[in-house]
Amino acid sequence: MEVNGKHFQTVWMENGIVKMINQPLLPHQFEIVSYSTCADTANAITTMVVRGAGAIGATAGFAMAQAVREATLSADFRSKLLKMREIIIQTRPTAQNLFYAVNRVFRAVEELPPEKAILVADQVAQEIAKEDALDGENIGKIGAELISDGMRIMTHCNAGWLGFVDWGSALSPIYAASRQGKKLFVWVDETRPRLQGARLTSWELINEKIPHAIIADNAAGYFMQKGEVDMMIVGADRVALNGDVANKIGTFEKALLANYFRIPFYVAIPPSTIDKDCPDGAAIPIEERSNDEVLYGYGISDDGITGRIRLAPAQAAARNPAFDITPAALISGFITPTGIVTPDQIKDVI
Amino acid sequence: MEVNGKHFQTVWMENGIVKMINQPLLPHQFEIVSYSTCADTANAITTMVVRGAGAIGATAGFAMAQAVREATLSADFRSKLLKMREIIIQTRPTAQNLFYAVNRVFRAVEELPPEKAILVADQVAQEIAKEDALDGENIGKIGAELISDGMRIMTHCNAGWLGFVDWGSALSPIYAASRQGKKLFVWVDETRPRLQGARLTSWELINEKIPHAIIADNAAGYFMQKGEVDMMIVGADRVALNGDVANKIGTFEKALLANYFRIPFYVAIPPSTIDKDCPDGAAIPIEERSNDEVLYGYGISDDGITGRIRLAPAQAAARNPAFDITPAALISGFITPTGIVTPDQIKDVI
Repeated sequence: MEVNGKHFQTVWMENGIVKMINQPLLPHQFEIVSYSTCADTANAITTMVVRGAGAIGATAGFAMAQAVREATLSADFRSKLLKMREIIIQTRPTAQNLFYAVNRVFRAVEELPPEKAILVADQVAQEIAKEDALDGENIGKIGAELISDGMRIMTHCNAGWLGFVDWGSALSPIYAASRQGKKLFVWVDETRPRLQGARLTSWELINEKIPHAIIADNAAGYFMQKGEVDMMIVGADRVALNGDVANKIGTFEKALLANYFRIPFYVAIPPSTIDKDCPDGAAIPIEERSNDEVLYGYGISDDGITGRIRLAPAQAAARNPAFDITPAALISGFITPTGIVTPDQIKDVI
Repeated sequence: MEVNGKHFQTVWMENGIVKMINQPLLPHQFEIVSYSTCADTANAITTMVVRGAGAIGATAGFAMAQAVREATLSADFRSKLLKMREIIIQTRPTAQNLFYAVNRVFRAVEELPPEKAILVADQVAQEIAKEDALDGENIGKIGAELISDGMRIMTHCNAGWLGFVDWGSALSPIYAASRQGKKLFVWVDETRPRLQGARLTSWELINEKIPHAIIADNAAGYFMQKGEVDMMIVGADRVALNGDVANKIGTFEKALLANYFRIPFYVAIPPSTIDKDCPDGAAIPIEERSNDEVLYGYGISDDGITGRIRLAPAQAAARNPAFDITPAALISGFITPTGIVTPDQIKDVI
C-alpha cells in the first residue's frame, strides 16, 4: 500500500537480506530495517518489529531461506537447518502462518543438495510472500461485496497491510470498498496492551483517507448499544478445523457483544491461517507476553522523544495473554480469498 | 483507609478549606491538595483531582458549603447561591451522588438567614461525607458474606476508598473479607482510558496487601473463559429505578461476559447513587470527555518524571464516552449498606 505516495510492502527479501517496516516505531517514525542473518530475522519476530499473521508468515519463510544459506556453510546441513528451524518456530507460539511458512520452505529443500537448496528456498519464500499479498487483495474483492455505502465497521487490533505483506485481511475489504467509492466509517479499537489499533490501524486509515475514530477497547459495547456499528471484521492468528479462532486478546469479548446485538461478525483470513492439525480452539496454545506491556505505555513525548511511561504502581503485578479464543458459534462467516464461508465449511478451504 | 500506616480519607473539609488526595498523581506521588473557594473545589471535580461516585458527592457537598460562605458576602444571597450551585452541578453530568449532595445542602439552607446558613451547610456537608464513609463500611460487612475463602474476584475501574470518602463500594467487601482472614485474589481491569484500575485499585490493594493482577481490559473475557473468575463486583455512578446502572465505560462489556459464563455480577452502591427521578438507563446522560484521554497515556518516565506520551498518530481522531449503561437483566444483585437486593427491589432502597 501507499506511504506518502510511494508503494511499500510490510516485509520483503533482496539478495538474502530481509527488509521490513520497523513497526514499534509507528506511527511516530517510518523506518526500514534490514537483517542479514536468520537469527536476527527471527528476533525481529519475537520483539514484534514485524507482527500480524501474514507478515509473520512471510518473515518466517524469509528467515528459513536465510537459514538454508547459513546451513550450507555447516558440515551437517540437515542438522544445522533443523536447529535453525526450531529457533524460528520458537519466536511466537500462536501464529499459524509462521509454522505454515517454515514447514513449506523446509519440506521444499530438505532432500536437496546445498547449492540447489539455496535457490529453491529463496523461490519458495518469495512465493509465500507473493501469495500472501495476492490473498489479501482477493480477500478485499470478496469482502467488499458485504460492505454497502455508509456502513460503520468496527475492527480490533491491526489486520491491515502492516499485518500482512500487503493489503491485509480485515482491512482489505474496507480498502477495496472505499476505492469503489463507498463512504465508510471505521471504529478502531485501540487494542491494549500493544495498541496496534491506535498506532497501526489508524495510521493505515489516515494513509487511505478513510474516516475513523479510535476508541478505548472498553467503549466498543457502548457504540454497539447505541446502534452505531453495522458490522465487525477482524483477522486471525490461527483458525481451528471447527471454526474456532485465535486472535488478538479482546476479540472474543467483541464477538460476544456483536452476537448480543446481532451485528454481523466476520473473520478475514488467507488459507495459510487455517491449522489442519488443530481440531478446535482448546488445542491452540496462547502466548503470554511480558507484563511490562501492560504496566507501561509506549509512545512519543510532547518533546518528540519516543519512549515508555510506567502506568501502574512499582509493586503491581500483571498478567498478559496476547490472544484469546472466539468460539465458532459467535462467527457469522469467514472472508477468504476464494469466497465467504461459514465456520462449518472452514475445514474445506484450501 | 491506611497509607503507609496512617489513616487517610479521600476528601475532607476543615474550617471551610477542602482537602483531598491528588488522584491524577497516584500511584507515583501521594499529595494532599487544598481548595479555599467553591470554584476551585468544583474545578477539582471537573479535572478529576477527585473522582468516583461517593468522593464526587462529598466534594460537591463541601463545595456547596463553600458556596454558602461566599454567597453570604453577596448582596443577593439566594441568586448568588443558585449561580454557584449551577457551577458545581455542571462539573460532571453522570454522577448521581453529585446532584444528591448539592441538593441536600441547598435545601437545608435556602430558607435560612446567612449566618445560620453557613453553620448548617457545614454540618450537612460533613454529614454527607460521614454517611458516605459509613455506607462504605456497611457495604463491606454485607458484601463480605458473599465472599468465601479462595475466591478470585474481578473488578473494573476504581470503586475503592479513593472513589468514596473511605472504604469504597466494590472494594469494601473485598477489604472486609480479607480482614476476616479469607484469602482472595483480585483481577484488576486496567480501565482505559484513565487507567483507574491500574493506577488506583492496584495501589489500594498493595496498601491492603491483597494479591492481584492488573490485566488489559481486553483480557477479562479470557480469564472468565478459563474459569479463573468466581465473581465480579463493580461500583456505579448512577442507578435508575428499574435497576439499570451507569458505570465506568467497559462495565457493560464485563457484565455481558459474566452473564455468558454465569459468573455472579454485583454492583455495590450507597443509596445516594440511586436516582429516584430516573426511570431507566436510557434517561441517564453519558459524559463524553476529551479525546486526549484516549490519544495519550499518562504516567511516570524511567527517569521519574510524570507526564504524558502520545500513543496515536498526530492526525488521528477519537471518541471518548466515560460511562456506559449495564441493563438490569445482567445484574445478579446490588450490595447496599442495608442488604443485598435484586434490580427489581432497587426502587425500595432508601
